[in-house]
Amino acid sequence: MTDNLLRIIPLGGLGEVGKNMMAYEYGKNILLVDAGLMFPDNDMLGIDYIIPDFRYLQDKTDWVRGIVITHGHEDHTGALPHLVEQINAPVYATTLTRGLIESKLSRNGLLSKVQLKTIKAGDTAQIGPFQVEFFHVCHSIPDGVGLGITTPAGLVIHTGDYKFDHTPVDGWPTDYAKLAELASRNVLALLADSTNADRPGWTPSERVIDGALRDVFRASKGRIIIASFASLISRMQQVGNAAIDHGRKLAFVGMSMVENAKTARKLGYLEFPDDLVIPLDQALKLPANQVVIMGTGTQGEPTSIMGRLSTGTNRQFDILPEDTVILSSHPIPGNEESVYRTINRLFRRGANVIYENIAPVHVSGHASQEEMKLMLHLVRPKYFIPIHGELRHLRQHGEIARQVGIPEDHIRVIENGQVVEFKDGRMQLGERIPGGYVFVDGAGVGEIGPSVVREREALARDGFVLVTLTMDQDTGRLVDEPEIITRGFIYTRNGDDMLDEMRHMVRSAVERGETHPHDLEQAIKSFLFNKTKRRPMVFVATSQT
Amino acid sequence: MTDNLLRIIPLGGLGEVGKNMMAYEYGKNILLVDAGLMFPDNDMLGIDYIIPDFRYLQDKTDWVRGIVITHGHEDHTGALPHLVEQINAPVYATTLTRGLIESKLSRNGLLSKVQLKTIKAGDTAQIGPFQVEFFHVCHSIPDGVGLGITTPAGLVIHTGDYKFDHTPVDGWPTDYAKLAELASRNVLALLADSTNADRPGWTPSERVIDGALRDVFRASKGRIIIASFASLISRMQQVGNAAIDHGRKLAFVGMSMVENAKTARKLGYLEFPDDLVIPLDQALKLPANQVVIMGTGTQGEPTSIMGRLSTGTNRQFDILPEDTVILSSHPIPGNEESVYRTINRLFRRGANVIYENIAPVHVSGHASQEEMKLMLHLVRPKYFIPIHGELRHLRQHGEIARQVGIPEDHIRVIENGQVVEFKDGRMQLGERIPGGYVFVDGAGVGEIGPSVVREREALARDGFVLVTLTMDQDTGRLVDEPEIITRGFIYTRNGDDMLDEMRHMVRSAVERGETHPHDLEQAIKSFLFNKTKRRPMVFVATSQT
Repeated sequence: MTDNLLRIIPLGGLGEVGKNMMAYEYGKNILLVDAGLMFPDNDMLGIDYIIPDFRYLQDKTDWVRGIVITHGHEDHTGALPHLVEQINAPVYATTLTRGLIESKLSRNGLLSKVQLKTIKAGDTAQIGPFQVEFFHVCHSIPDGVGLGITTPAGLVIHTGDYKFDHTPVDGWPTDYAKLAELASRNVLALLADSTNADRPGWTPSERVIDGALRDVFRASKGRIIIASFASLISRMQQVGNAAIDHGRKLAFVGMSMVENAKTARKLGYLEFPDDLVIPLDQALKLPANQVVIMGTGTQGEPTSIMGRLSTGTNRQFDILPEDTVILSSHPIPGNEESVYRTINRLFRRGANVIYENIAPVHVSGHASQEEMKLMLHLVRPKYFIPIHGELRHLRQHGEIARQVGIPEDHIRVIENGQVVEFKDGRMQLGERIPGGYVFVDGAGVGEIGPSVVREREALARDGFVLVTLTMDQDTGRLVDEPEIITRGFIYTRNGDDMLDEMRHMVRSAVERGETHPHDLEQAIKSFLFNKTKRRPMVFVATSQT
Repeated sequence: MTDNLLRIIPLGGLGEVGKNMMAYEYGKNILLVDAGLMFPDNDMLGIDYIIPDFRYLQDKTDWVRGIVITHGHEDHTGALPHLVEQINAPVYATTLTRGLIESKLSRNGLLSKVQLKTIKAGDTAQIGPFQVEFFHVCHSIPDGVGLGITTPAGLVIHTGDYKFDHTPVDGWPTDYAKLAELASRNVLALLADSTNADRPGWTPSERVIDGALRDVFRASKGRIIIASFASLISRMQQVGNAAIDHGRKLAFVGMSMVENAKTARKLGYLEFPDDLVIPLDQALKLPANQVVIMGTGTQGEPTSIMGRLSTGTNRQFDILPEDTVILSSHPIPGNEESVYRTINRLFRRGANVIYENIAPVHVSGHASQEEMKLMLHLVRPKYFIPIHGELRHLRQHGEIARQVGIPEDHIRVIENGQVVEFKDGRMQLGERIPGGYVFVDGAGVGEIGPSVVREREALARDGFVLVTLTMDQDTGRLVDEPEIITRGFIYTRNGDDMLDEMRHMVRSAVERGETHPHDLEQAIKSFLFNKTKRRPMVFVATSQT
C-alpha cells in the first residue's frame, strides 16, 4: 500500500445500463457511491433483477467508511437492501432520496439496521479520508447530487446522473458555479454519465412537456390516464399543474406511485393544493372530463396498471372509448416490444394513446453530447473516465472527450471490474476483480447461475419429454405401455401417430435389452429429432416390478 | 353473392409488422397480394417464424386466379413456399423479385411446381376479373411495384411498401405520373403502407448514405466490415461504389448475401466492374486497407457473421484492432437488446463500430408522414384503409388521412381477419375470419399453439422438478430414497439442505399413505414455493416393486 494511491473500483454501471456502484479506495478506506439494480435482458429467463457483484468488499467490510446515494432511482438504490445486510456503514442521501430509501428499507424490514444521514447540495461531509462536497444536478428526479471528492491523491468529480436543464420543473438548475469552483482547484479526474453519448445536441428541458400536456388536456373529452415512472416526481407536478388548469382532479394508482407521491409531498417536493389529489374510487365516480389518473406501467409490464388495462384485466376500472392514455416515458432498451404491444392493445380497447413518437410527452433525464462537452469544459479534468452506460456509450463519450481536447492517453474507457489507480497524479490500470452479474430471482440471491439460465433456454426452445417405464423384475419386460408426458414440446395428444411410434420404438429397445435410462434417452432424442427437427430435453424414469 | 361486391380480406400485415398478405375477392375469384412471414416476438419461445393463417382459402383454392408479389422482402415472400403447397395459381413478380423467389423456391424443392410470370412496372395483367396495373415504387429493394387494381366494383390502389425518394440509388423514382393518372379515373379505395406513420417529415433519400460511407471509408485505416440486410441490393451498390473510390476490393459473406448479390448482378440490378468482387479467402490475404467485407447479421443474431465476429467464434476470420464495422441497418422492434449487445461486444474486441446513432449509415425504406400526405393527395381516394403496420401505425395513418381531408367515416382502421366490403361504391365492414398467427418451428407448421408456448414460458421462468419414487407393492413403503432431478430451477446439488428436506417431506407423505402422484405434486409445489418463492413444474413418477 502506498501513501498516495487512490483506487477507483467500478462494481457496476460501466459497460451496461443500470446497477450503478463505484468504490473509491484510499489506504484501508472505502467510499461507496450508489448501489443500484438492473433489470434482466429478455434472454435472462425468469430472473427478477440483477445486482452488482460486490464480493470484492467481502473481506474489507470494515474498510467501508460510508455509502453515498446520488439520487433515488432504482438503478442507484435497488441493491441497497442487499448491501446493508453485509456492510455496516452510514448511508448519506439528500432529503428526497433518503425518503425513498426509507420506504424501500422498511419494506425489507431493514430500516432500523441502517444509519441514514441527510445531506443537501452545498454540504461537505468528511467520510474517512474522503472530503465529499455535494453539488446539485438536474435529473429526472429532484434532489440529485454530484460529488466533488477530495482525496489525498487529488480531487475527483463524480457527476451521478445529470443533465443541464435551464428551466427544470423544480426551478433548480445544475450548479454550474460549484462545478467551476471545483475546476479552479485542479480536477484530477472526471467520472461522468454517458447514457446519451450517442444523442447529438442538447436534451430538451422538462418544460417542453408542459406544452404537450396542455394540448392533450385541451383535446381530451373523456378521462386522462397517464403512465410514468413512480420516481418521476417532477412529472407528477406537471400533471398536477395541468389538472388544475383544466379543472380535473388527480388520482394516483399503484403502490409505488402512491407511496412516492406521498413521500415527495410530505417532504415538500410536490406542491399540490389540498383538494387536487383524491382517492381512485372517488375519481371513478366523477364525470370523465374531470379526472386524471396517474400510474406506472410505462414498460408494458403485464402486471402493471397499464398492462392490465391493455388486456382488460384491471380490477377497479376498464378502458372506456373516450379515454386518452398518455405514456410519459421512453422504452428501456429491450422493452420496446412489450411497450408497443401494450400501446396496440390500448388502441384496440378504444383508447386514444399518446406516446413519445406522437407528441413530446417525455424527455430524457440525461445529458446529450453538447451537454457532455459543456461538462468537460467546465470541469477541465486532467483525466476522464466515462461511467454509466453500455460500452458503446462509454466509447462515444470517450470520443467526445477527445474532440474537446483531452489527450487520448488521459481517457480510459473501462468496464466493471477493471480497477483504475491514481498515484503521483498519474492514472494507470490496476487489477481486474469480479464485475459480473448477480441474479436475483424469487426469494434467492445468487442461486441462479448461467447454467440454470441455459437450462431454461433449452426448455424454452423445445420443452421436454418424460417417459416412464415399468418393467418386470424377472423378465425385464415392460409391464405397462410406456407413459409419455410432454411440456412445451409440440402439441401432442394420445392417439397421435408420433407418440404411438415412439412407444413402439421404446418397447422394441427394451425388448432388445436396452434398458439403461441414458441409452434410452439418447435413442428417444434421435427419434424425436428425426421426426420433428427439435431437441427437447428427454428423461426416462424406469422402475422394476 | 352480389354482382358488384368486392371483398378485401386482410390475412396479414394489418395490426402487426410482417407476414403481409391480402386477398381481393370478387364473385368466385380471388387475387392474392404478397405472402410474407414475420419473425416471432421475444416471448414466442422457440418459434422460428410466423406465417399468415390462410385457412380462409382452404375450400376456395380453385377461386385463386393469381398471386402477385410486390417486392422481394421476406415479409412479403416468406410464406410463399407454404402457400404454393396448397394453392396452384400463377405467381406474378418483377424480374428481381422473381429471381429472389426462384432461389427461395429452389431451396424448398418447389420451383418446378410453381408457374412464375414476369411482369414489369408499366405492365397490365388481367388476372380473372382483376385488371392489375403495376407501377414502380421506391423501397429499400429495387424493382418494387404498387398495384392499380380495376375491379367491376371500382379501382383500388394497393401501394405495397414504398417511399418517395427523389434520388434513389437506382435512379428510378416512384411513378408519380401513374399515380396521378390512376387518380384521374376515380380511386374507390387506397390501401397504403403505414410503417412509419409516427415519423414526422420525409424519410431521407438513400443518397445520404453515400456521404456517410465516404466519411467512414476516408477515416478507416484497417478493414471495413459492413453488415446489412441480404435484400438491400442498393446498399450493395453504394458500398461497391465507395470501395471503388477508395481502392478497396469487396467480398460478400453469408449464403443469402452471396446468393442475392449474384442474382441481382446477373439480372442487371448491380453494376460492378468485373474485378471489384473477390472471394473472401482472397480478400483476407490482401492488406487490410484494401478490403471491404459485406455480410448479414444486423439484428444481432448469434449465428450470423456479425454475431459470430462479436463473440470470437467466426470460423474464417476474427475482428482485428483496426477494423471498422458498419451496421447499415435499423433494429427491428424487439431486437434492440441483441443489436446493442453485439455492438458492445464488437467494441470490446477492438473494432470501431459505426451505427445509425453515430452516422447516417442507414435510412428507412418506408414513407414518413409528409410522404403519406402526398400519396393521399396524389391519389385522392374515396375510401382509405391503412395497411402494413402495427395498430398504432394504422391508427396514426388514419389520423393523417383525416388531417388531409378524408371524411372520418371513409377511413377504416382494421386488423387481420376483418373483411371490408365494397358494394355500389360504398364501404362497409364484413365478416370476421381467422387472422391469427401460424407458428413455424423446426420442421413443423402449426404444431405449436399458444398452449405449448405458455408451457415453454412456465419452464423458462422456473424450470421443473422431477421426483421418481419406487414403492414396495405390499407395504406401500418407499424402497429407495426419492430421486430428484431439476432443470432450470435453481442451482441444486446432492447434499443440499433443501433437497434433503424435500426428500424427507415426500417420504413422510408416502408413509402417511399420500401416494397419489397428483397429491404429491401439489405438496411438493407448496413446499418449493414456501422455500424459494418459485413455481417450477413438478412431476412425480411412481412405480411399485
